[in-house]
Amino acid sequence: MTAVESYIELIRRTREAATLGSCASVLGWDERVYMPRAGSSFRGDQMALLAKMAHEMSIAPEVGEALAAVEGSDLVRDPETDAAVNVREIRRAYDRSVKLPKALVEELARVTTRAQQAWQEARQANDFPSFRPWLEKVVALKREEAQAVGFKEHPYDALLDEYEPGTTASEIKQVFAGLSAELVPLISAISESKRKPDKQILQRDFPVELQKVFGTSAAAAIGFDFSAGRLDVTTHPFCSGIGPGDCRITTRYNPRFFNESLFGILHEAGHGLYEQGLDPEHFGAPLGSYCSLGIHESQSRLWENQVGRGRPFWEHFFPRAQQIFVDALSGVKFDDFYFAINEVKPSFIRVEADEATYNLHIILRFELELGLMSGDLKPADLPGAWNEKFSRMFDLTPPDERQGFLQDIHWSMGGIGYFPTYTLGNLYAAQFMTQARRDLEGLEDDFRRGDFLRLKTWLNEKIHRPGRRWRANDLCKRITGKPLGHKALIHHLRDKYAMLYGTTTMITG
Amino acid sequence: MTAVESYIELIRRTREAATLGSCASVLGWDERVYMPRAGSSFRGDQMALLAKMAHEMSIAPEVGEALAAVEGSDLVRDPETDAAVNVREIRRAYDRSVKLPKALVEELARVTTRAQQAWQEARQANDFPSFRPWLEKVVALKREEAQAVGFKEHPYDALLDEYEPGTTASEIKQVFAGLSAELVPLISAISESKRKPDKQILQRDFPVELQKVFGTSAAAAIGFDFSAGRLDVTTHPFCSGIGPGDCRITTRYNPRFFNESLFGILHEAGHGLYEQGLDPEHFGAPLGSYCSLGIHESQSRLWENQVGRGRPFWEHFFPRAQQIFVDALSGVKFDDFYFAINEVKPSFIRVEADEATYNLHIILRFELELGLMSGDLKPADLPGAWNEKFSRMFDLTPPDERQGFLQDIHWSMGGIGYFPTYTLGNLYAAQFMTQARRDLEGLEDDFRRGDFLRLKTWLNEKIHRPGRRWRANDLCKRITGKPLGHKALIHHLRDKYAMLYGTTTMITG
Repeated sequence: MTAVESYIELIRRTREAATLGSCASVLGWDERVYMPRAGSSFRGDQMALLAKMAHEMSIAPEVGEALAAVEGSDLVRDPETDAAVNVREIRRAYDRSVKLPKALVEELARVTTRAQQAWQEARQANDFPSFRPWLEKVVALKREEAQAVGFKEHPYDALLDEYEPGTTASEIKQVFAGLSAELVPLISAISESKRKPDKQILQRDFPVELQKVFGTSAAAAIGFDFSAGRLDVTTHPFCSGIGPGDCRITTRYNPRFFNESLFGILHEAGHGLYEQGLDPEHFGAPLGSYCSLGIHESQSRLWENQVGRGRPFWEHFFPRAQQIFVDALSGVKFDDFYFAINEVKPSFIRVEADEATYNLHIILRFELELGLMSGDLKPADLPGAWNEKFSRMFDLTPPDERQGFLQDIHWSMGGIGYFPTYTLGNLYAAQFMTQARRDLEGLEDDFRRGDFLRLKTWLNEKIHRPGRRWRANDLCKRITGKPLGHKALIHHLRDKYAMLYGTTTMITG
Repeated sequence: MTAVESYIELIRRTREAATLGSCASVLGWDERVYMPRAGSSFRGDQMALLAKMAHEMSIAPEVGEALAAVEGSDLVRDPETDAAVNVREIRRAYDRSVKLPKALVEELARVTTRAQQAWQEARQANDFPSFRPWLEKVVALKREEAQAVGFKEHPYDALLDEYEPGTTASEIKQVFAGLSAELVPLISAISESKRKPDKQILQRDFPVELQKVFGTSAAAAIGFDFSAGRLDVTTHPFCSGIGPGDCRITTRYNPRFFNESLFGILHEAGHGLYEQGLDPEHFGAPLGSYCSLGIHESQSRLWENQVGRGRPFWEHFFPRAQQIFVDALSGVKFDDFYFAINEVKPSFIRVEADEATYNLHIILRFELELGLMSGDLKPADLPGAWNEKFSRMFDLTPPDERQGFLQDIHWSMGGIGYFPTYTLGNLYAAQFMTQARRDLEGLEDDFRRGDFLRLKTWLNEKIHRPGRRWRANDLCKRITGKPLGHKALIHHLRDKYAMLYGTTTMITG
């Protein structure tokens, strides 16, 4: 085979594996949205089979052979060509996969399936001891995984690399340290402010059917394409990019709380816009895949927070919300509504946290994960470490384990290294949005008219279409001229809360 | 490997192939129920990949080796044991699969995909010439398939064997001839009867939401388990048995016609009860699979027609329907309603036909298919042959091709041999129901109380749990003491219409 033939075969195999993975996406979506209760056990069999077959495809020796035949050929001499980019990233994924011993992969699958069950029960019963042996197993296996994959500085880097290719723990530490140094005093100032929003405004009757109409129209307004997507109801909302022409978002409706579904829909639609913006010609190949989880999250946070919790957005949508939710909102003043949806208040549950305190939840988890992976923190000591850190950072003590370190599913499913991508998303979102405002003059006037097309097109071009061409931080530098930092997010938060809470905090840069 | 080990491996492989097939079932259901429009092309890629992989699994040489290692061993000496039954049927399917050349399988997949598109367009435009070359290709390939599979008497037998294992064209010819000889005079007598139902009763406002409530409650009443199933909306209703604990039925609602969704739901729920009644321990293996399409259809027809269009059923449900559809039914008399839902009237469209004339539609198609497969009928001559036969049998001439030979999808998808299973279903249903009434005294009193449990349990035991243990006709003999015949269906129809239309036709046996 020539190098070109090998490359074609490589892409064919990569695409085939992605297509099989996309079948699992359909089944995963169905499981969480429509599957009848009694189908759960068999669905596990189906998912396990697809995972096994996809893994076999990803480590097939033919992939390694095709890679070897292409690498060093003229086809990839220029590292900027499509072929070179695809080969670089397929190599990266292949090396990672083949480094993992089959026994470890199977053991991880088995243990995390059972650990998730144990976690669910432990969480309901506030019973850490029953989960502890599973957490210990998971952590031990993840440390083994890190050893198998290899790392330069910290075992955490090996796990992070799966979600955030090329980013290291020490880079994150540095960015998080800068963020924390400015965020903590800002949150303190807000807590001490005499101004408080009237959150009751948002806790009235918001009929589910009307929320659906409003949320759907908001998602369509920002550009989510419903001819190539859906919105359904689930317990823990998610976005599933199945493949070209098919991306599905989900939400849950709380008939007595406005924020939950609307901001959730904007968040998932932001993920959905990324998926819908990927290049379908490159489906399955790195050039048609998302860059990193942090960049993916930047797209959801950008629409949810940077746009969706902004004044210009609501200058357009608030009158429309008042027309739809007549009983709840007709007598409400714009400023009161806007303040209410932007309340900052330290709380126990990460997924319910506001735009500012959310990041403290992540920093806490990141620090604990570093300890778990280095071995400095024993899983058995996690509850104490969590509560100690939480009290210090939030000035609150979790009343129980469910509202403490048992609240998230991530550790039980082996997702150590995943949490920081959420705050990376917030940071990237702020930095991208700052740049978008520079590139697109009068952007917020667009929003005031309910027009989000220029921003969506900018994101499509700058972030979605390149796929995995550049690593996250390189993408950030190309777009914003700077590596990822904490300044853009801090400026955004400081400006917003200065208006709302009258807070002024020291500007350090 | 010992014979036992080979058997375990054989079952493991069979089950794995079925599990992969069930993933395609989820995607197929999704495609017809929820998939966004733009996802269609990629869904084709997903389905093609799963079909290719499932086919590769089914013809794996390891299956042949395991079969050879088990056959002739003590494990299968007694042909009544579970192992012997499974091995017998896995051998049958394996031999059929390996006989088909890979090139033919791929060509059939390619041609039928495009032929279905051509059929859809030709049907809309009443344009047979554009479909004719595709029909010719399909028929030629199916004749090739019959040669590859092999047959004793008629090439049609080779195709029939896929849907109705062990049943031959000559057997069907004989049963259909008996049926036709008695059905045609009965339908004539009905046509000549002065009594006519007032069908307007059923063409009033039946709000979709209320139809959904009523249809769901009817499906639940006959025993469809909604904790292990769902009911959704689609264009061409179907039942999809995905796997243990997961079976999904679908319907379509016509807000101005009562019959369409209610009898459709009973029909699909009948299929669903069969799927839900299969032995989950044997999932994927022949003992956990349906016996034949004819037997599957017998379950849908039994609930739709034998039970659902019967007086006792409506003695329970009509007062309930009146409570739900107040505007449409409150002033309607029971006898008028019962007559209206049992109207017999020759018409052009098979899927809209009544319980009696439906079978003429099938007999017509069966006779044409025999000609196509023997070569006596050229695809080009199909329109003429259809219209000639139709006029003779129905005393009506199709006004166009859409209401004539272009109405069904089956031929474009290569489903020659499928049609007769619909009338086999009607025949089996009548024969089973006659036996059930003998075995279960006072059964119709159960129905009058809205209690269908004894019948469901009888079907579970006699038909569902045995899976593919016996061939269809052997199952019929075991349950009813007789091979399949036309008498039970004719008696059922004659009794019903004697009451409604006052018809008396000569009893020939």
